[in-house]
Amino acid sequence: MSKGLFISFEGIDGSGKTTQLELLRQRLEAEGRSVVAVREPGGSPVAERIREVLLDASIDGLNPVAEAFLYGAARAQLVAEVISPALDKGSIVIADRYLDSTLAYQGYGRGLDKGFLNQLNQMAVSGTIPHLTILLDLSPAEGAVRRRGTVPDRLEQEGLAFQERVRRGYLALSCQQPERIKVVNAAQLPEKVHEEIIYLVTTYLKP
Amino acid sequence: MSKGLFISFEGIDGSGKTTQLELLRQRLEAEGRSVVAVREPGGSPVAERIREVLLDASIDGLNPVAEAFLYGAARAQLVAEVISPALDKGSIVIADRYLDSTLAYQGYGRGLDKGFLNQLNQMAVSGTIPHLTILLDLSPAEGAVRRRGTVPDRLEQEGLAFQERVRRGYLALSCQQPERIKVVNAAQLPEKVHEEIIYLVTTYLKP
Repeated sequence: MSKGLFISFEGIDGSGKTTQLELLRQRLEAEGRSVVAVREPGGSPVAERIREVLLDASIDGLNPVAEAFLYGAARAQLVAEVISPALDKGSIVIADRYLDSTLAYQGYGRGLDKGFLNQLNQMAVSGTIPHLTILLDLSPAEGAVRRRGTVPDRLEQEGLAFQERVRRGYLALSCQQPERIKVVNAAQLPEKVHEEIIYLVTTYLKP
Repeated sequence: MSKGLFISFEGIDGSGKTTQLELLRQRLEAEGRSVVAVREPGGSPVAERIREVLLDASIDGLNPVAEAFLYGAARAQLVAEVISPALDKGSIVIADRYLDSTLAYQGYGRGLDKGFLNQLNQMAVSGTIPHLTILLDLSPAEGAVRRRGTVPDRLEQEGLAFQERVRRGYLALSCQQPERIKVVNAAQLPEKVHEEIIYLVTTYLKP
């Protein structure tokens, strides 16, 4: 693929992706490594505009197929504009959500055809797959407690049953691709979660 | 498919699609038929927001794959929200651009893989293909003259060489699917063009 290292974080809302991504970034940068952090959907000016359309809670009736295409569009833009160039330069790219979110949310969560979503994913990223995906596993009830006090966006409003389907989807994906997708228990203290992540990442780092 | 009739208009900018669509709509409505006119990209609140992202001339560096996905998203939304329900009710749906625009512009115009675009199209519309597509054929130079005095949008700025590739792409598509895509010489007077269109449409109309 390229000289760099590509790591993605996955998990339901409230599982601590953003916190852990930031801790990992700081650690790697402290070691003098070049790190590029991106979030999905978004991460580039065009993709941020697509993100606005996607997450706007006021949009009723967004068709699930259209939604999947919008995620694909944001992802294709992010890969072309940010991820591929950074990997080519040898940087470590850390993504807050990537391919597996589509399958977990649109596939397992909403019931869209997984073959269709896989095809769409492949077309969007054309071979740019993470070397390592860290799945922060957490029960939806615990995730809800952590998010208390924040305004829920459209996806968050859909409730715990949906989040439970998404969580089970993520775990199914990790069983299908155990080499790439590593499960970390996100109910632990953040420092402990961070430690496990460092352990997983270290095997992929060049000295 | 359904009880209704689905007609799409295709052609380069300035070929008279909007004018001819309006003339056809008036004619069919005068006969007491139920007509639903849609334009691509757009035609529904969500799709109009995607249209804004796509056509905004200020967006530099929109990746061609991301662009194709955005068109796919707008199309999937339009099919689910407007086209399919109208056809199910037995209406005549007239679309200002549809599937063939993707192949002509992104495929023949920009050089994206046509197999990829075909696949993307099929995923977006899931079987909702026009019964009749009217290709308004015009030389790009003539199209430019007609548009004189209007502010060019991002696509229009790309010049006549691009439009020429698009035109040839449209003609290639009409050769591949002669039963569905009918070519009308758009350099004729609008009344003459309208007459030819009525002739083509009549064979599809229930008495």
